[in-house]
Amino acid sequence: MTTVGFIGLGIMGAPMAANLVAAGHEVTGYNRSPAKVAALVERGAKGASTVAEAVRGADVVITMLPDSPDVLDVVTGEDGALAHSHPGQLLVDMSTIRPEVSRQVAEAAAAKGVKALDAPVSGGEAGAVEGKLSIMVGGDAEAFGAARPVLEAMGTTIVHVGPSGSGQTVKAANQLIVAGNIQLLAEAVVFLERSGVDLERSIEVLGGGLAGSTVLNRKAPNMIKRDFTPGFRLELHHKDLGIVTTAAREAGVVIPLGAAAAQLVGAMVARGDGGLDHSGLLKLTEALSTDQTA
Amino acid sequence: MTTVGFIGLGIMGAPMAANLVAAGHEVTGYNRSPAKVAALVERGAKGASTVAEAVRGADVVITMLPDSPDVLDVVTGEDGALAHSHPGQLLVDMSTIRPEVSRQVAEAAAAKGVKALDAPVSGGEAGAVEGKLSIMVGGDAEAFGAARPVLEAMGTTIVHVGPSGSGQTVKAANQLIVAGNIQLLAEAVVFLERSGVDLERSIEVLGGGLAGSTVLNRKAPNMIKRDFTPGFRLELHHKDLGIVTTAAREAGVVIPLGAAAAQLVGAMVARGDGGLDHSGLLKLTEALSTDQTA
Amino acid sequence: MTTVGFIGLGIMGAPMAANLVAAGHEVTGYNRSPAKVAALVERGAKGASTVAEAVRGADVVITMLPDSPDVLDVVTGEDGALAHSHPGQLLVDMSTIRPEVSRQVAEAAAAKGVKALDAPVSGGEAGAVEGKLSIMVGGDAEAFGAARPVLEAMGTTIVHVGPSGSGQTVKAANQLIVAGNIQLLAEAVVFLERSGVDLERSIEVLGGGLAGSTVLNRKAPNMIKRDFTPGFRLELHHKDLGIVTTAAREAGVVIPLGAAAAQLVGAMVARGDGGLDHSGLLKLTEALSTDQTA
Amino acid sequence: MTTVGFIGLGIMGAPMAANLVAAGHEVTGYNRSPAKVAALVERGAKGASTVAEAVRGADVVITMLPDSPDVLDVVTGEDGALAHSHPGQLLVDMSTIRPEVSRQVAEAAAAKGVKALDAPVSGGEAGAVEGKLSIMVGGDAEAFGAARPVLEAMGTTIVHVGPSGSGQTVKAANQLIVAGNIQLLAEAVVFLERSGVDLERSIEVLGGGLAGSTVLNRKAPNMIKRDFTPGFRLELHHKDLGIVTTAAREAGVVIPLGAAAAQLVGAMVARGDGGLDHSGLLKLTEALSTDQTA
Repeated sequence: MTTVGFIGLGIMGAPMAANLVAAGHEVTGYNRSPAKVAALVERGAKGASTVAEAVRGADVVITMLPDSPDVLDVVTGEDGALAHSHPGQLLVDMSTIRPEVSRQVAEAAAAKGVKALDAPVSGGEAGAVEGKLSIMVGGDAEAFGAARPVLEAMGTTIVHVGPSGSGQTVKAANQLIVAGNIQLLAEAVVFLERSGVDLERSIEVLGGGLAGSTVLNRKAPNMIKRDFTPGFRLELHHKDLGIVTTAAREAGVVIPLGAAAAQLVGAMVARGDGGLDHSGLLKLTEALSTDQTA
Repeated sequence: MTTVGFIGLGIMGAPMAANLVAAGHEVTGYNRSPAKVAALVERGAKGASTVAEAVRGADVVITMLPDSPDVLDVVTGEDGALAHSHPGQLLVDMSTIRPEVSRQVAEAAAAKGVKALDAPVSGGEAGAVEGKLSIMVGGDAEAFGAARPVLEAMGTTIVHVGPSGSGQTVKAANQLIVAGNIQLLAEAVVFLERSGVDLERSIEVLGGGLAGSTVLNRKAPNMIKRDFTPGFRLELHHKDLGIVTTAAREAGVVIPLGAAAAQLVGAMVARGDGGLDHSGLLKLTEALSTDQTA
Repeated sequence: MTTVGFIGLGIMGAPMAANLVAAGHEVTGYNRSPAKVAALVERGAKGASTVAEAVRGADVVITMLPDSPDVLDVVTGEDGALAHSHPGQLLVDMSTIRPEVSRQVAEAAAAKGVKALDAPVSGGEAGAVEGKLSIMVGGDAEAFGAARPVLEAMGTTIVHVGPSGSGQTVKAANQLIVAGNIQLLAEAVVFLERSGVDLERSIEVLGGGLAGSTVLNRKAPNMIKRDFTPGFRLELHHKDLGIVTTAAREAGVVIPLGAAAAQLVGAMVARGDGGLDHSGLLKLTEALSTDQTA
Repeated sequence: MTTVGFIGLGIMGAPMAANLVAAGHEVTGYNRSPAKVAALVERGAKGASTVAEAVRGADVVITMLPDSPDVLDVVTGEDGALAHSHPGQLLVDMSTIRPEVSRQVAEAAAAKGVKALDAPVSGGEAGAVEGKLSIMVGGDAEAFGAARPVLEAMGTTIVHVGPSGSGQTVKAANQLIVAGNIQLLAEAVVFLERSGVDLERSIEVLGGGLAGSTVLNRKAPNMIKRDFTPGFRLELHHKDLGIVTTAAREAGVVIPLGAAAAQLVGAMVARGDGGLDHSGLLKLTEALSTDQTA
């Protein structure tokens, strides 16, 4: 049993914290909106009305926040988590943010005797609810060992991939592949439809060969039904592709397909479709292609 | 038991024909090079020294040839298959060629009372040897039914996807997705390596989430080892991407990622790397990115 | 004074033929639609009611037709120009077609003792009317010398660029650069507008530096006014980009920006905007970008 | 006559400052390396050994520095320009930096009663030496009017394009167009060469039509000779494309060709060719295309 301060009870954070409670950990939850805290308290957690309350005395502090500035603010800000932590506390940031911000957080934590891990996740809301997330962890190996029992309440594939920031780097690569695979599937679907073949059977046979992928299995059905309820919103994927294009640039790595996919995701957001699931990329390819019903 | 004339005993055709023999069909094989015919005869087939010999009297004629001109020549050419076929014979072209050429072949066949199917395959040499190919079939539904028992000796996923040419259309979509997925994986691998994370563990965690794919499972190990022994050669993929970009253009479908991937595959061929496996795209991304060992 | 048979009296061909008449050549015009022939006759030409009539006895035969199949049909078809030509006649095809078709035409002509040049033009309707076209000529140097006096009635920059097909190759390169330069200008214009700078002054200062171009001078004003009256229609540019992507592929040359531009032009045609001037590419970039007026 | 403090005497700054001296202004120059200061003193300027010395009492302070962090440091840093400026002083930053950094500098300046302009330039070393730069100015109209006489000593096209940051926005658009136009020219040149046409005559005829551009006029000769002596280095263009892709992203504008060009420029830098002139992009297209001499 570990005492956990959990900060950030959104679509992902709320079920993750609930799974920690269910696994027998003593969780104190905090969110800017008190209603989300109340909902977690009903599942058996304690509620905090400030970051300080969630952090003070906890063995592990977990943050699950939207973007880099939020993490900097909540962790390193005046009256943030580090202001109330104690030496030996473990800080696990599970947000998807820029690798260099994770490194910056780890340094600030180290100055307080706190060990920080970056541990972004993949698997979406369903994975968070079912406790089946993939978790990619960057930071000290010993700290990873210490955090593992807590992480096991939230995910099934939990991998230590390198020093601070590495978890974010792997998550960035994940988002690059996912965006590209979705866009390629969208191109194939529109091409198949406009060519008059049997789409469902085509998807079946494509899935059985080298073109098979998790994206094809999970997203092709939505595309066929034009059901773009998220799931994972394009506006979040847009933010993540900003991270990966910048990180690749800094690493001196050329990503021609990734960069092209980032433009298309950006176009969806610009068109006002940022609230759709990322499989909504189909709409764009469709809008740019000949309408045979016309 | 069916009598089958099999024309084209290359890397794919030879094991496919051998599987037909093993399944109890009476196969007569033909290839321009007599050595390949002899090898098949050793596995229990009859050998033919002309196309005519392989075709005459067979229930089913199968062709497995490199490109559109070869199929036109062998099937519709003077002294080609159709010149020696009889009404009611079934012609199954398993080559990967342009959809419109498949339609042209089907028309020429119909004029002779022959039913033609286009039935390209996915699964590579391994799939051909093991009889586990995916086969995407275009043409008449009744003819598909008649061909099915023969096809089952060669593949496990056998799907009728629409009228003549549809098999080629689906194969084209397959090659679009595969080339793009490989390139995205290559970009991710170079990015991860140059960022100093643990590559093998990263691939493991990526494979467990939405970024997972058959390409990742089969090609990431080759990329990590820089082992680009084919497998499927880039020069063949280049030919296939020519088919899909042309077909998409004719269908009025925009394929921004597909077109970008086609340029990169073209660059590999132009650089003299057309003989490598398509996972060799890694080399290009690597050549275009900063070398940290320098 | 030269006797000229002129076949193809469209938007470009009509004023080109009229300029030949005005320069004192004896022109016999032919077009499928008799009204176009009548219009040229009013400017002082003779009219022909068949290709044969226009070709027979002429010193020079000029063709100005939409696409490769038209040229093959009119020149090498049964009852086409070559069927009625005489040895020593000069055939000048000024259409924009595939380089390899030009080479094919030249061979067919040579077999009849006719020398053929490919001589596509740049400069648009305005250039045709004013006799100020740029003409890029492929074929035999001697034939070029012989054709020169006739070409000078239609253009100001008349350049022999190499053997048969070379004129088409240079025209293909022209269309690659033009499409790309227009798209880049469109991206810059939308970026500037959405960023709230003074657009007209920005264009002025851009035009004065290394970003200056004929495209910027001629197309930026249309873009600013959203006046996409052709000019040169996107559907023709789409055809031409099909020529250049195929020719580059055959030459083993990678054209990443050209291929990307070709996708965008294709999207405009697919959207039903093929009748707009090619500066209409602005509409697409605009449609894909955030609307700040919303 | 105006007293000018000039900070940053590099390849561009040194001749710009010298032109100010030649035009009769009283210039005090500062650079981290004293040798550059000494060189300017020989041309008639005063030398400063600190930023403070150059700034104190000057009517106008000009900065010409490599990148955003340099400007922030020299202008807003401890002991930077603003620490020594007086109300009513005019600050003209002619560096190419991020628009938002220019806005940040302008705000910091305003807090001291100093009016700041962003005034990046186009025209390269030659333009700087000859005093023929294009200067795109963002900021207050009145401040622009006050700076104009000083700017006229350095440039010929001097345009006020909008509020603070607008000069940088227009410069970003300039770099987008220039990189793309160069890459398109490189693709055309390799395509023409590999197709065996007469390259010099082709460039001549292309320049006479809609494909004509300043890039074609100035860069095609270098490309033909493979002379990639800078001129403008790819590593600087890489930095600038980072600015424009980020700024376009923030403005919600999709730049598919710009983003693709940025990847190619990034690849050149990664390959170790960042020190070449930007026309060196030819090398990349060449490296990716079939070598016919092989």
